[in-house]
Amino acid sequence: MNKEALVCTIGDEILLGQILDTNSKWLSEQLTQMGFHVKEKITISDEKPAILEALKRGMENFDLTIMTGGLGPTKDDITKNTVAEFFGDDLVEDKDSLDQVKRVFEKYGRPLLEVNVHQALVPSSCTPLLNNWGTAPGMLFKKEGKMLISLPGVPYEMKNILNERGWPMVKEYFETSEIFFRTVKTAGIGESFLMEKIKPWEDSLPQDISLAYLPSPGEVKLRLTAKGKDQSSMENEVNDQINRLRPFVNEYIYGYDDTNLSRTVGELLRKKGLTLSTAESCTGGYLAHLITSEPGSSDYFLGSIVSYSNQIKLDQLGVSNETLEEFGAVSEQVVEQMALGICNALGTSFGIATSGIAGPTGGTPEKPVGTIWIAVSDGSEVRSKLLNLTKERGLNIQYASKIALNQLRLWLSK
Amino acid sequence: MNKEALVCTIGDEILLGQILDTNSKWLSEQLTQMGFHVKEKITISDEKPAILEALKRGMENFDLTIMTGGLGPTKDDITKNTVAEFFGDDLVEDKDSLDQVKRVFEKYGRPLLEVNVHQALVPSSCTPLLNNWGTAPGMLFKKEGKMLISLPGVPYEMKNILNERGWPMVKEYFETSEIFFRTVKTAGIGESFLMEKIKPWEDSLPQDISLAYLPSPGEVKLRLTAKGKDQSSMENEVNDQINRLRPFVNEYIYGYDDTNLSRTVGELLRKKGLTLSTAESCTGGYLAHLITSEPGSSDYFLGSIVSYSNQIKLDQLGVSNETLEEFGAVSEQVVEQMALGICNALGTSFGIATSGIAGPTGGTPEKPVGTIWIAVSDGSEVRSKLLNLTKERGLNIQYASKIALNQLRLWLSK
Repeated sequence: MNKEALVCTIGDEILLGQILDTNSKWLSEQLTQMGFHVKEKITISDEKPAILEALKRGMENFDLTIMTGGLGPTKDDITKNTVAEFFGDDLVEDKDSLDQVKRVFEKYGRPLLEVNVHQALVPSSCTPLLNNWGTAPGMLFKKEGKMLISLPGVPYEMKNILNERGWPMVKEYFETSEIFFRTVKTAGIGESFLMEKIKPWEDSLPQDISLAYLPSPGEVKLRLTAKGKDQSSMENEVNDQINRLRPFVNEYIYGYDDTNLSRTVGELLRKKGLTLSTAESCTGGYLAHLITSEPGSSDYFLGSIVSYSNQIKLDQLGVSNETLEEFGAVSEQVVEQMALGICNALGTSFGIATSGIAGPTGGTPEKPVGTIWIAVSDGSEVRSKLLNLTKERGLNIQYASKIALNQLRLWLSK
Repeated sequence: MNKEALVCTIGDEILLGQILDTNSKWLSEQLTQMGFHVKEKITISDEKPAILEALKRGMENFDLTIMTGGLGPTKDDITKNTVAEFFGDDLVEDKDSLDQVKRVFEKYGRPLLEVNVHQALVPSSCTPLLNNWGTAPGMLFKKEGKMLISLPGVPYEMKNILNERGWPMVKEYFETSEIFFRTVKTAGIGESFLMEKIKPWEDSLPQDISLAYLPSPGEVKLRLTAKGKDQSSMENEVNDQINRLRPFVNEYIYGYDDTNLSRTVGELLRKKGLTLSTAESCTGGYLAHLITSEPGSSDYFLGSIVSYSNQIKLDQLGVSNETLEEFGAVSEQVVEQMALGICNALGTSFGIATSGIAGPTGGTPEKPVGTIWIAVSDGSEVRSKLLNLTKERGLNIQYASKIALNQLRLWLSK
């Protein structure tokens, strides 16, 4: 039987509907992967009675309770005092955390304020989880076989504290590994078409392997999960099924597990000693951002020219005035000249170009919002593609960038 | 006192962390605007005991409970039967819903299955909420001054049912006492320093106005909420407090409510008829992406040169080889040449440049990871700034972009 977990996020901005609760999604994902059964998620307000009730609920009904939010320096953060009261603890100074707070303030050459020193205080019965990414430490409590972890709400602080300090302690305290899963990452095919293609394989999956489709703009992830056996036989079973899956959708699979499309493309370029540049109109720099989000991308990515104005397409990318006037900026002809132009301008082995109508306005009957041309070139040959995307600007930018990147992957994989 | 609401979403895909719970964000937003105090949000799994417990919690402790999910045709959707059991109801046919189900199946020329006819059955004591956008009707229960609404989980079905049928009944049933809030958006100051600066103001806030700090990379939002009076006097009170706040932190306030930093800067540029370009090294296109995420940004943003390689800094931005060799790419001298260079290269009124070590590797004792120079120029004058940021690549990219954008805002606001 899996251990049961409660995920509790604290914050009025979530209850007011001002922000999406992405913390609890990440926590649920991580806990599930570790074999916990996340039985409930709750969001409560930053008020003592609500926090006390949630603590009671968690410690009485769940093996593991994870609480995020309400550990910042400001007045509306009362979680720490409430947790201390719940466990009957005094607040004591945690030297490591105080050193960390001092480091942060020295680094910024700012005076250390009383309110910040207070951040280094923790309930006496907790194991402090040092926060190297901020000033408020996490707090881990063990009591009668149950565990509570309270963490700051800032997503990267919460994630880093757990990955570096919290999860190892959780795994040690509970014997959890009763689950094994791998993720197959695909690009260039929609969820329902993917479903059609792999149906014979999916229908033949054994009972103890479950499949989940996880779509996101420009990608669909397939997660295979095996349950309840010893690690090695679960691993073998999942890997066997992935080998059986491959023939159905091989060209769409760009990687597995923690990789991403930018990394896959980057590794292909690095392996072949090739360089890349981008010429972006409608994607406005997002494609370059995707690529440069990968550490070490400067090995193969030389740069980008975001040509939002037509003048820049002419001056910097060598698009011809005649072509612009005859076909318009959003056209196969212009996007192909952009792709060739960027290879020449920046002297790279490959260039990717985008030009389209991201929206919400600017559409015409012939070229409605979502009409986007992408092109990939090696400096001589050019391969372009017309996309008919959505009415939503943000989505169109993400889709076009992912699809363009995948076009380069397909070229390099040949 | 505001009426209290519970938002309950049902679905294992949320508990497994496979999807973000966007329904509950929308519901919280709507309920808050109607004057409800959303006191808690819970997500539970599609199991009878969990649903029964949530129903009990909701009807005992809250005025209004909204439940979404678990009304589809498949056998694992047991919400309807559980709700009927909870209220001691039989399932009875709702003619309008049956007609709707038939319409849908005729439209798609599909045979009507028993399982679909079953969707037109509703608990005898409920008011059915006809679903013109799907096959499963919503269900509204009134009991001893409390209300429960159960809805399908498909976002557009849920939203349409409530907007057309549910919300009017909610407003009629409850006289919801009002709430009013505004958000003050600041950039260029950290949470604790902001708190210090506005302490005298915060300490003097009246009881019926509450303040929340909402930090995110490069920004801190302040939310002022007034409760329990008529709309106009709450509005006046909040606006008065904002006027009292301004003198303390005026230079840091870039806008209010739904605006964002890119839009504020864009409006300043548009109003003054100025144009902008960016020269990005360490931000790798993210700054251009922030700017071009705003619809209509092509009015003032001409483009960007992402100069990841030094050669491009030399060729495209006119950085001098001597300067590069003497001071290195991550230096005040180079970033200032980049800012001037992009103004000239793209012929814009203003240029922003970034150059730094985003990490995780590439740091040196003199220039550790997180050392980032930013510069803003109007083509003749240049103003640069050294940032000492974090160890985290993604975060450094976000911080540097926001801070650089804010530097331009400060220049334009003078």
